[in-house]
Amino acid sequence: MLAWEVTRPGPIETGPIEAVTREIPEPGPEEVLVRVRACGVCRTDLHVAEGDLPPHLPKVTPGHEIVGEVVRQGHRFAPGERVGVAWLRHTCGMCAYCRRGAENLCPSSLYTGWDADGGYAEYAVAPEAYVYALPGDRPDVEVAPLLCAGIIGYRALRRSALPPGGRLGIWGFGGSAHLAAQIALAEGARVHVFTRAKAARELALRLGADSAQDSFDPAPEPLDSAIIFAPAGELVPAALRRLDRGGTLAIAGIHLTDVPILEYQDDLFQERQLRSVTSNTRADGEEFLRLADRLGLEVTVTPYALDQADQALADLAGDRVNGAAVLVP
Amino acid sequence: MLAWEVTRPGPIETGPIEAVTREIPEPGPEEVLVRVRACGVCRTDLHVAEGDLPPHLPKVTPGHEIVGEVVRQGHRFAPGERVGVAWLRHTCGMCAYCRRGAENLCPSSLYTGWDADGGYAEYAVAPEAYVYALPGDRPDVEVAPLLCAGIIGYRALRRSALPPGGRLGIWGFGGSAHLAAQIALAEGARVHVFTRAKAARELALRLGADSAQDSFDPAPEPLDSAIIFAPAGELVPAALRRLDRGGTLAIAGIHLTDVPILEYQDDLFQERQLRSVTSNTRADGEEFLRLADRLGLEVTVTPYALDQADQALADLAGDRVNGAAVLVP
Amino acid sequence: MLAWEVTRPGPIETGPIEAVTREIPEPGPEEVLVRVRACGVCRTDLHVAEGDLPPHLPKVTPGHEIVGEVVRQGHRFAPGERVGVAWLRHTCGMCAYCRRGAENLCPSSLYTGWDADGGYAEYAVAPEAYVYALPGDRPDVEVAPLLCAGIIGYRALRRSALPPGGRLGIWGFGGSAHLAAQIALAEGARVHVFTRAKAARELALRLGADSAQDSFDPAPEPLDSAIIFAPAGELVPAALRRLDRGGTLAIAGIHLTDVPILEYQDDLFQERQLRSVTSNTRADGEEFLRLADRLGLEVTVTPYALDQADQALADLAGDRVNGAAVLVP
Amino acid sequence: MLAWEVTRPGPIETGPIEAVTREIPEPGPEEVLVRVRACGVCRTDLHVAEGDLPPHLPKVTPGHEIVGEVVRQGHRFAPGERVGVAWLRHTCGMCAYCRRGAENLCPSSLYTGWDADGGYAEYAVAPEAYVYALPGDRPDVEVAPLLCAGIIGYRALRRSALPPGGRLGIWGFGGSAHLAAQIALAEGARVHVFTRAKAARELALRLGADSAQDSFDPAPEPLDSAIIFAPAGELVPAALRRLDRGGTLAIAGIHLTDVPILEYQDDLFQERQLRSVTSNTRADGEEFLRLADRLGLEVTVTPYALDQADQALADLAGDRVNGAAVLVP
Ligand SMILES: [Zn+2]
Ligand SMILES: [Zn+2]
Ligand SMILES: [Zn+2]
Ligand SMILES: [Zn+2]
Ligand SMILES: [Zn+2]
Ligand SMILES: [Zn+2]
Ligand SMILES: [Zn+2]
Ligand SMILES: [Zn+2]
Repeated sequence: MLAWEVTRPGPIETGPIEAVTREIPEPGPEEVLVRVRACGVCRTDLHVAEGDLPPHLPKVTPGHEIVGEVVRQGHRFAPGERVGVAWLRHTCGMCAYCRRGAENLCPSSLYTGWDADGGYAEYAVAPEAYVYALPGDRPDVEVAPLLCAGIIGYRALRRSALPPGGRLGIWGFGGSAHLAAQIALAEGARVHVFTRAKAARELALRLGADSAQDSFDPAPEPLDSAIIFAPAGELVPAALRRLDRGGTLAIAGIHLTDVPILEYQDDLFQERQLRSVTSNTRADGEEFLRLADRLGLEVTVTPYALDQADQALADLAGDRVNGAAVLVP
Repeated sequence: MLAWEVTRPGPIETGPIEAVTREIPEPGPEEVLVRVRACGVCRTDLHVAEGDLPPHLPKVTPGHEIVGEVVRQGHRFAPGERVGVAWLRHTCGMCAYCRRGAENLCPSSLYTGWDADGGYAEYAVAPEAYVYALPGDRPDVEVAPLLCAGIIGYRALRRSALPPGGRLGIWGFGGSAHLAAQIALAEGARVHVFTRAKAARELALRLGADSAQDSFDPAPEPLDSAIIFAPAGELVPAALRRLDRGGTLAIAGIHLTDVPILEYQDDLFQERQLRSVTSNTRADGEEFLRLADRLGLEVTVTPYALDQADQALADLAGDRVNGAAVLVP
Repeated sequence: MLAWEVTRPGPIETGPIEAVTREIPEPGPEEVLVRVRACGVCRTDLHVAEGDLPPHLPKVTPGHEIVGEVVRQGHRFAPGERVGVAWLRHTCGMCAYCRRGAENLCPSSLYTGWDADGGYAEYAVAPEAYVYALPGDRPDVEVAPLLCAGIIGYRALRRSALPPGGRLGIWGFGGSAHLAAQIALAEGARVHVFTRAKAARELALRLGADSAQDSFDPAPEPLDSAIIFAPAGELVPAALRRLDRGGTLAIAGIHLTDVPILEYQDDLFQERQLRSVTSNTRADGEEFLRLADRLGLEVTVTPYALDQADQALADLAGDRVNGAAVLVP
Repeated sequence: MLAWEVTRPGPIETGPIEAVTREIPEPGPEEVLVRVRACGVCRTDLHVAEGDLPPHLPKVTPGHEIVGEVVRQGHRFAPGERVGVAWLRHTCGMCAYCRRGAENLCPSSLYTGWDADGGYAEYAVAPEAYVYALPGDRPDVEVAPLLCAGIIGYRALRRSALPPGGRLGIWGFGGSAHLAAQIALAEGARVHVFTRAKAARELALRLGADSAQDSFDPAPEPLDSAIIFAPAGELVPAALRRLDRGGTLAIAGIHLTDVPILEYQDDLFQERQLRSVTSNTRADGEEFLRLADRLGLEVTVTPYALDQADQALADLAGDRVNGAAVLVP
């Protein structure tokens, strides 16, 4: 089969990934073999290819937004069933975090396309317990981007403790944010978007946001909840100050530049709270995928042939992709 | 009756409070008249006397840890019943915060001994809806300090989201902290105290804390929850780093010096959270007072005669009080 | 002004309510005077008129789904502002239930159109703290039915503990149910309706329900949550058996015929739970009204002139009203 | 090694279990081998021996309250470490219940001493992920009964939604109940026990219960929460009527005779709720064992030599055991 591998981690313009021919992988005892029908291209793949994320598996095949069909093995899924393979691939099931339903914090977790081969290939194997059922008839290419950006954004939304019909502020408006915003709007929230990118502001308004403004502009109303999707620590006090009494700020990213000095009265008092968001549980994934299907979230996609994966990554690095890039074998 | 009033707000050594003779106050339609049997002396009284808190009522009588008996009026209480009058005296009952059970955030709240006359007197009136029943036979002087330090510490404990049998870190170990620690210990928590005051560390260990160390010492184990009672912002990153994944830090104080720069990975990632604590609800007060009675919390008290209120405040300012100062008319 | 009063409580065909001319009422110190622009006709009004609910105020004016505009007095509202007056009119604010945010359980609560004059009149007064702001431009007659049926149905929905994107069963499909179903559907739930009324089943499907069947038919899938809106106790085991493990059944009504014998294994084991729903809090009301506005709930209305209130009640008693009857002065 | 096996399931007087000599079992890849130091005798063992629970594994060794030390294998535990092996032995980790942290509801769960050999033997193997660490220096025989009765009672207590310092009613006062009561009392609750057994009432009072009375006696005060430990459905309306508004009744048992007809107003209205309790999660077990250790729960034990297991079961069947029977190899 055709598969890409990270041969020499480094800048994308040095060609760190390479197309090779490999044997179709053999599923282990609790795994399924999946024929890849679409695989989203995520910024994390770029970090793997460029070596920003330290290599875990030599010559790993990237890709963790896989929509495919089950070919072989499997107790939960029948052959031919459409399934999704996402970033979270394994947790230990016995640490204190796993035991209390916080598997997103498991220190032994493994990830698709980093610790094990992912979806930049014609076939992939995945531990069945971490595979998502994907019923519905939405096209594969539109489902793929939901599997990473969507799930992460959804957990951030839940961590922001938004009350029913509440007022949500969103800082940064890329892949995760625009999906989380659509869920919030469908549920009746008022959504205010803060970003310096004019096109993103226009998209926000088109999707139904109540307002869109620059990152440090005043908020049209005090916020019950806020989510920071941009990796910029200086947004933290800005968002905290726009919270109403008792409000919650969730930081969605893995990376954030330093948070500047906080002044207690202005930034934290009145029972405001600040929390980070880390990875996701499978329950988050299932909830989100169910909702995404029911609520008909809008997803913009640019398809690439599988043998153009290097081009797709380069375009992503150069901000030349409209919506989400998705590889189609 | 004998009553103290804040005549000229200023440094305690300039004699800002003065003993006067006043009429016994007349309760309004939804108020009770209480004969004061004990009134705790709280650091907030010092702030009122010294003018750190801007005067709200001219010539106000300080004191908001009042244990007394009902003399007249009242639908909830019979004459002779022992009751408590605390800091929170009024909320609007109709703002969004009040409506959702967060009356501690009500912007229209009023406070005893600041907006209305308090307990440095032989009698006091209070809105009945904000008065606590005080059953039990614990001496009045031991109950008084529970009414402010105790309730605030209790809300901080609840806001720290301590799981059953969990691991709690406490920074600062004064009046509120040592009461909150006793509740946590009674409920089965492991408690680690961080303070530079050697006597406080000894008290902590005597009360059953699992460890006591200096403010920036390492924690004996990762913490599920932490509370900062000291007004020092530099403790925030120290406490955050000692939290386990998913842990919560509550800041108990009204004042806190600036929080220094936070590094995301070390200080916040892994779903740690930081929240402030603001005032309390009446439900907090009732829960705490019930538990304090049942669990037999230990309280150290130094009684003063009512006509020595100025001395008590001066001793408090000079850190010369052992435990809590309490005025006894 | 024109007002209706319950002169001789009794069967609707005996003419228990009478149109009279009254003085425009004078608002008390914490009340507002409202010019009624629409007032829904609720089955509870029929119970008041017919004496099923024991009379609380002699010659009371019925009506507790009032949309009006503020005429005079008021700190929260300006003259001319559109507001809503609903069933819950007063709670004590100091009982244990009120203190912990469960004012719906307050034993001292008072109700509009039962304990005090309601909206079958040109003007009404109401305690400002219990009045709802009604922004938005939806017509008055469509907002009125939201104020009772809508709010009650919403609390029932929340009490049913429906998880995001979950599976909800609804027994009975009248005014409350069809509004609650619309909220659940908007939030992404799968909704299954059980009722013997064919027209109601058709309405359910038209509004987007995933299935509609007879009351005791099997469920298309196990349910996370269920609500019984019909006053029939024999539905309780039927609904319980259709719950998935860990599922919740909420009983929405005030009245329910006896619940038949329950078999533990079939009806309750596997952590299923059964709970009643009682009245609502103001927070429920605000949340629901905000959501109803945002989500554009569909409401079917039959308007009546105010002087036809007796006819409207008679039509309601005879099941001759299409959707909700609303009086328009 | 010496081991007991259920040879011919049937009445205890027919000798259904038999002592045999077996090879020391070999731990599988994710299992540990444990040398049994104490094993509690639970009524469920009697059900296995007598065939009330249908046999799952032929010639199974009963026993699911095992305190032992690790002999071999294991990533979580070092050789020599004291551990506990309890009833819940396996869950699938991938069903919807497992994924959302409700592994107690997993339809694929397996149980020690029923699906696999248990602790009526000198050695046992157990899946490491389901083994509890047992630090502390409490004697083995006193820890054993905590592992089943204790954990189940604890989950029931949590499911009863007892507020801090709340009022708890307990119906039935055997092994689980008297441990749950001690936790509740330690946490500051007021506990009222209802049982017709005079000795149990005396034990309740000695352990600190606020009252003890017959099963259908009036409650000294309305209850926030109630737990039924006795398998008698007729207690359900009795307990429901003794709940305060908003109160919760949890049914702790696996078996319950039919629940009689419920009258809505008297038994359920005012937002009372009724829920069952099913098995437990590992998180419940860890929380309880931690608390039991910290709070020094009192446990009464009657030790038996391992070769007297048949006698211990017969004594249990005949109600001749004081406290909990525990086998000591
Ligand atoms: Zn883990
Ligand atoms: Zn990704
Ligand atoms: Zn307020
Ligand atoms: Zn104070
Ligand atoms: Zn009340
Ligand atoms: Zn109504
Ligand atoms: Zn499972
Ligand atoms: Zn057992």
